[in-house]
Amino acid sequence: MSTENKPSLHTVLTPQLLDLYEVKDSIVVIIDVFRATSTMATALYNGATKIIPVDSPEACIEIGNATGGITAGERDGKIIPGLSYGNSPSEYPKSFIENKILVITTTNGTKLLHMALRKGAKEIITGSFPNLTQVVEYLKAQHAPVILGCAGWKNRFNIEDTLFAGAVIEAIKEHFTIHCDSSFMANQLYNQHKNNLPTYIKTLTHWHRLAAYGLESDMLYCITQDIAPSLPIFKEGALINGV
Amino acid sequence: MSTENKPSLHTVLTPQLLDLYEVKDSIVVIIDVFRATSTMATALYNGATKIIPVDSPEACIEIGNATGGITAGERDGKIIPGLSYGNSPSEYPKSFIENKILVITTTNGTKLLHMALRKGAKEIITGSFPNLTQVVEYLKAQHAPVILGCAGWKNRFNIEDTLFAGAVIEAIKEHFTIHCDSSFMANQLYNQHKNNLPTYIKTLTHWHRLAAYGLESDMLYCITQDIAPSLPIFKEGALINGV
Repeated sequence: MSTENKPSLHTVLTPQLLDLYEVKDSIVVIIDVFRATSTMATALYNGATKIIPVDSPEACIEIGNATGGITAGERDGKIIPGLSYGNSPSEYPKSFIENKILVITTTNGTKLLHMALRKGAKEIITGSFPNLTQVVEYLKAQHAPVILGCAGWKNRFNIEDTLFAGAVIEAIKEHFTIHCDSSFMANQLYNQHKNNLPTYIKTLTHWHRLAAYGLESDMLYCITQDIAPSLPIFKEGALINGV
Repeated sequence: MSTENKPSLHTVLTPQLLDLYEVKDSIVVIIDVFRATSTMATALYNGATKIIPVDSPEACIEIGNATGGITAGERDGKIIPGLSYGNSPSEYPKSFIENKILVITTTNGTKLLHMALRKGAKEIITGSFPNLTQVVEYLKAQHAPVILGCAGWKNRFNIEDTLFAGAVIEAIKEHFTIHCDSSFMANQLYNQHKNNLPTYIKTLTHWHRLAAYGLESDMLYCITQDIAPSLPIFKEGALINGV
């Protein structure tokens, strides 16, 4: 493939920067490593029928009632009053989630997904280390522009989502035209730390925030590559497993 | 100094993220490595009386006429019609700029400076590799919260401004409380590349953009540490040399 024919790839470091990029007709990968998109990959891999991401607890309860789905969401490390489960991937083993609908509200990832939807994304998938290879293989097969969308933390940059973007870039960069300093930085950051991720993540702001709630093992799970190889793809209001 | 008494330090990766941070009562460092803040440091070091940063060519002409100042500004590598000089540090040697007023309009840096001003920054200075040590010594002496403000490129992230933020952080991090992934990333990026900056910058998007205008030597100057050791500080509408 000649350089000219390779589609573009950009990395959006936080949702607040999304409007600077050509979302329309791009495939957008929603990245929320700790923990929304890791949990989504896990639930679908373990047989959930679909996942309905919603942006408020009220919508979560309403849609949970309407669909008979399991309602899930946390704020500050605790299950939101009125919902039944949290955001931890460990809550969704096959024995529990298979053939069920999960209705989930999360702080950063769900918001970004809905923004990408409103801006006319061609396709929306979610990415995380537990489903890295599925994401990589999907993007390589599409021959379409890609936006790696980091959910960040309250619109600020965070390192763990950027690390995952860098892991994707490392795997697919030969197939894309990249004129994007955010992507170069993400790729370098990943290569700098890829051999010591479990140690490195303990230096991050989000590690300290979630470790205070006892969620260390969740975070180690969330950087485990290909442990939940599903492909969450957004179709008709819900994420389904595209594998 | 105990941890509790150390002031905070944050890095703002692009102007579009500035509203997420506590600008009021902070010292804001405006960073526009290629080339606005490098040129400002140079002009003040070479004896310019003051620099008036403005956000449009029209304002540049008007204030140039009112003050008898030299008007400067580029778009797309060319001097803007109606202005007299460009954005290159090489245009402002002592023999030319000493005892003169420089009225300059730039794409990204000037805009960020005015944003910080409107948001109530306690002090505004400009930083670049040519005046790195002056910036570092000033920040260490103030005992106040610091925001390192990267001008970026049309609100997108760029690597060269983040590298300079990382250089500042490397020099002052023991004196500040840092809970900011942007700052951690900037510091790591700088440490990863500090020993090969002249090679590394040739991989950046901005290098390619400016090299197309023949500005390679400008960019190499702009990563030369302490070659123009002034301290541009914003007072009564203009940057003066605070050294």
